[in-house]
Amino acid sequence: MDDVTRLLAIEDIRQLKARYYRCMDTKDWEGLAKVFAPDAIFDLREVNSVRHPLTGLWEPPYGGEADVHRGHAAVLTMIRDAVTKLITVHHGHMGEVEITSDTTARAIWAMEDVISNAPGEPAMHLHGYGHYHDTYLKLDGGWAIQTTRITRLRLSRG
Amino acid sequence: MDDVTRLLAIEDIRQLKARYYRCMDTKDWEGLAKVFAPDAIFDLREVNSVRHPLTGLWEPPYGGEADVHRGHAAVLTMIRDAVTKLITVHHGHMGEVEITSDTTARAIWAMEDVISNAPGEPAMHLHGYGHYHDTYLKLDGGWAIQTTRITRLRLSRG
Amino acid sequence: MDDVTRLLAIEDIRQLKARYYRCMDTKDWEGLAKVFAPDAIFDLREVNSVRHPLTGLWEPPYGGEADVHRGHAAVLTMIRDAVTKLITVHHGHMGEVEITSDTTARAIWAMEDVISNAPGEPAMHLHGYGHYHDTYLKLDGGWAIQTTRITRLRLSRG
Repeated sequence: MDDVTRLLAIEDIRQLKARYYRCMDTKDWEGLAKVFAPDAIFDLREVNSVRHPLTGLWEPPYGGEADVHRGHAAVLTMIRDAVTKLITVHHGHMGEVEITSDTTARAIWAMEDVISNAPGEPAMHLHGYGHYHDTYLKLDGGWAIQTTRITRLRLSRG
Repeated sequence: MDDVTRLLAIEDIRQLKARYYRCMDTKDWEGLAKVFAPDAIFDLREVNSVRHPLTGLWEPPYGGEADVHRGHAAVLTMIRDAVTKLITVHHGHMGEVEITSDTTARAIWAMEDVISNAPGEPAMHLHGYGHYHDTYLKLDGGWAIQTTRITRLRLSRG
Repeated sequence: MDDVTRLLAIEDIRQLKARYYRCMDTKDWEGLAKVFAPDAIFDLREVNSVRHPLTGLWEPPYGGEADVHRGHAAVLTMIRDAVTKLITVHHGHMGEVEITSDTTARAIWAMEDVISNAPGEPAMHLHGYGHYHDTYLKLDGGWAIQTTRITRLRLSRG
């Protein structure tokens, strides 16, 4: 792959990830559907777990197979169910994107999420930080997220 | 437009937006002046409004025509008056940049702002999240912000 | 330097900085070691100082020469000692990267850091915002951080 093609792929993937976050938080389900590949997998096993800085171990709760959502429809349903009634802010920050072939890529993105109940609902507030670990596939319509997995640095509640 | 020219334009606009945030928060008014086009428009009608996740409606207060600042001098004056006595942090995050012609572009950027009074002043704290919706113009001196509009996902006070 | 080489350098430096943050927060010391040039300098004199918005002056505590860490080993030791027992989140945001020659570059990055004690330790929480001011050197193995300096917009404790 020549340099310009690689730079274009990185730019496309960076904007794809921005679109993922924006569509999720503005509840643009049509836009969100276009972000994922048909065989997308969303791995949430570590989404409520944080790594203890002294032991280096991931602390519970650590999810199981039920927290791995497989296929385009299952991934979209999971996200929609998770965020539709909440005020959510998901921010992607700096990332490391590696183009591994003409049609495949992977990336790690720093992330922050701020989630709370809607006004009038019981108070609930989560504020987390961590990383997304993604792989991407180039389809006819452009790059799409094939697999995505969240790890946590920090999660506060209250 | 060839691929390299488009990539250069996207990179220039990404750095332009970074400069906008940095100059505003470090109170570098000369630097900030260079960021905007002569006929710049800053639309703040939705800056205090948040979209309710259940109804999908923008909740008041929703501003009026007086919250649309038109022209380079008016935009600079508005920003300077708004932030000069405060401690402000404005962060731009991931964005989607589209080059629409050799001299025009548009983008949506995720944003976060943290605003408080200076030490010794009465306590005041705002923490918001949302998006900037911008258009850009390529002038002789490079890309500049032509129109910019803020929408909110979340705004907390206290 | 031609346009494509410049774009590649900017992309490499952006990913280098992402790697710096990720390795620091995940305590990946081998990865972190690769980020810095042999003669790296980390200037922390302003890391606890914030600029007062009304006076424009940097407020104490403002560090001295002991807060400037010189050389690869000293920089790595300082970071390791500073973060190894803490839960840390360091986020880099938008940046302005300037390639100054085939082998040198500089950048300013917006940053945010969230630092607290591990569970079971006495409560300690810092949340800061500011900028990194960096220079970079292109070595045989790629771009590396040569000098890095932090300035603060805001720092809250408690």
